[in-house]
Amino acid sequence: MIEQQLRALGIELPVPKTPVANYLGSKRAGDLLFVSGRVSELRGEVGTDVSRDEAREAARLTLIDILAIIRADLGDLDSIVSVEKMNGFVRSSPTFTEQPYVIDGASDLWVELLGEPGRHARTATGVAQLPFGAAVQLEMVLGLSQSER
Amino acid sequence: MIEQQLRALGIELPVPKTPVANYLGSKRAGDLLFVSGRVSELRGEVGTDVSRDEAREAARLTLIDILAIIRADLGDLDSIVSVEKMNGFVRSSPTFTEQPYVIDGASDLWVELLGEPGRHARTATGVAQLPFGAAVQLEMVLGLSQSER
Amino acid sequence: MIEQQLRALGIELPVPKTPVANYLGSKRAGDLLFVSGRVSELRGEVGTDVSRDEAREAARLTLIDILAIIRADLGDLDSIVSVEKMNGFVRSSPTFTEQPYVIDGASDLWVELLGEPGRHARTATGVAQLPFGAAVQLEMVLGLSQSER
Repeated sequence: MIEQQLRALGIELPVPKTPVANYLGSKRAGDLLFVSGRVSELRGEVGTDVSRDEAREAARLTLIDILAIIRADLGDLDSIVSVEKMNGFVRSSPTFTEQPYVIDGASDLWVELLGEPGRHARTATGVAQLPFGAAVQLEMVLGLSQSER
Repeated sequence: MIEQQLRALGIELPVPKTPVANYLGSKRAGDLLFVSGRVSELRGEVGTDVSRDEAREAARLTLIDILAIIRADLGDLDSIVSVEKMNGFVRSSPTFTEQPYVIDGASDLWVELLGEPGRHARTATGVAQLPFGAAVQLEMVLGLSQSER
Repeated sequence: MIEQQLRALGIELPVPKTPVANYLGSKRAGDLLFVSGRVSELRGEVGTDVSRDEAREAARLTLIDILAIIRADLGDLDSIVSVEKMNGFVRSSPTFTEQPYVIDGASDLWVELLGEPGRHARTATGVAQLPFGAAVQLEMVLGLSQSER
């Protein structure tokens, strides 16, 4: 499903980046897949250096980066049957409060890829700083098909 | 159990608020319910605009808002049999360090509602900013009764 | 496995600290163990008061504190068979961006204790403030052996 939708949307996954420290891109626990936090290529503080729309686009692109990592881990994205929870961290200026708008960049893509099962519980938070000075960070818990256990 | 305790405590749930962006109030994964982050109606920075006791009360009220959302999602709160994990984000001034005191406002209510199974693992963090400039944000993972699967 | 590795590494667990507020050190949900956020004994802001290497060592020591709490909760650490997800919060100066380097202090210890199953998904975030002004906070989701259910 996801692989076909990526093609339909004309999205090509990049070469997956290797974690920069001692952790895995994702880890399976039964039917759940815990996916590591991944920062955006976009650097800067949202509300000052970076606009809300630039940050929203960065959230979408970060999810595409994450999909590349998961494909490398699982071999194929089609074992993902649902999105349970996504957390978005936005490096925010003291007055920037539109974190939900930013993280929708990634949530919208999940729904484009998986339809209703792509809709998820979510938390968006404003943080002071992120690894490498990135603007956005995403992490998530995904549901895997039983046959993949 | 929870429905009866709410009545015993004289707590009436408000009309549930709809998520402001592209996400669900909660999402089930087997016996677990992932509950989205929900911000307090109370705005402001704790330690400057908002006192620790106002923030603690806001944490309790935010949990009541969340219960309204979950009841709308599940139809009934009595399928909740335990609280596994709660995360509390407190919009904190640079010197405010009593996040655990604030989040107890919600943890105490869980124990009032569910007794021992309402006690939970928890993390309290101080963040720079929250959606809409809220003072407090809560998210959690709940345990559902098997029959509800 | 973990108990033996702790002895091999010469690590003695401290007396477990009791949570300072109304929450549990950890809570089991099926084969998963949700572990509460625990702050480092080390106080201060990383990048100003505290160096990155001091913070990294604090992350390792915080995991040792957490192991003491889990041993008290479970009776024995050998029911832990894997580490699913770890989250590290680093109280960061506005320009400190090496959160992954800091949290490796704890991730490395997990791998020393459990080998390959100790490798995990992870998120490292920079936050403005932590309970008690601590430098580092860790929380995690662990995998338990089936026989412990």
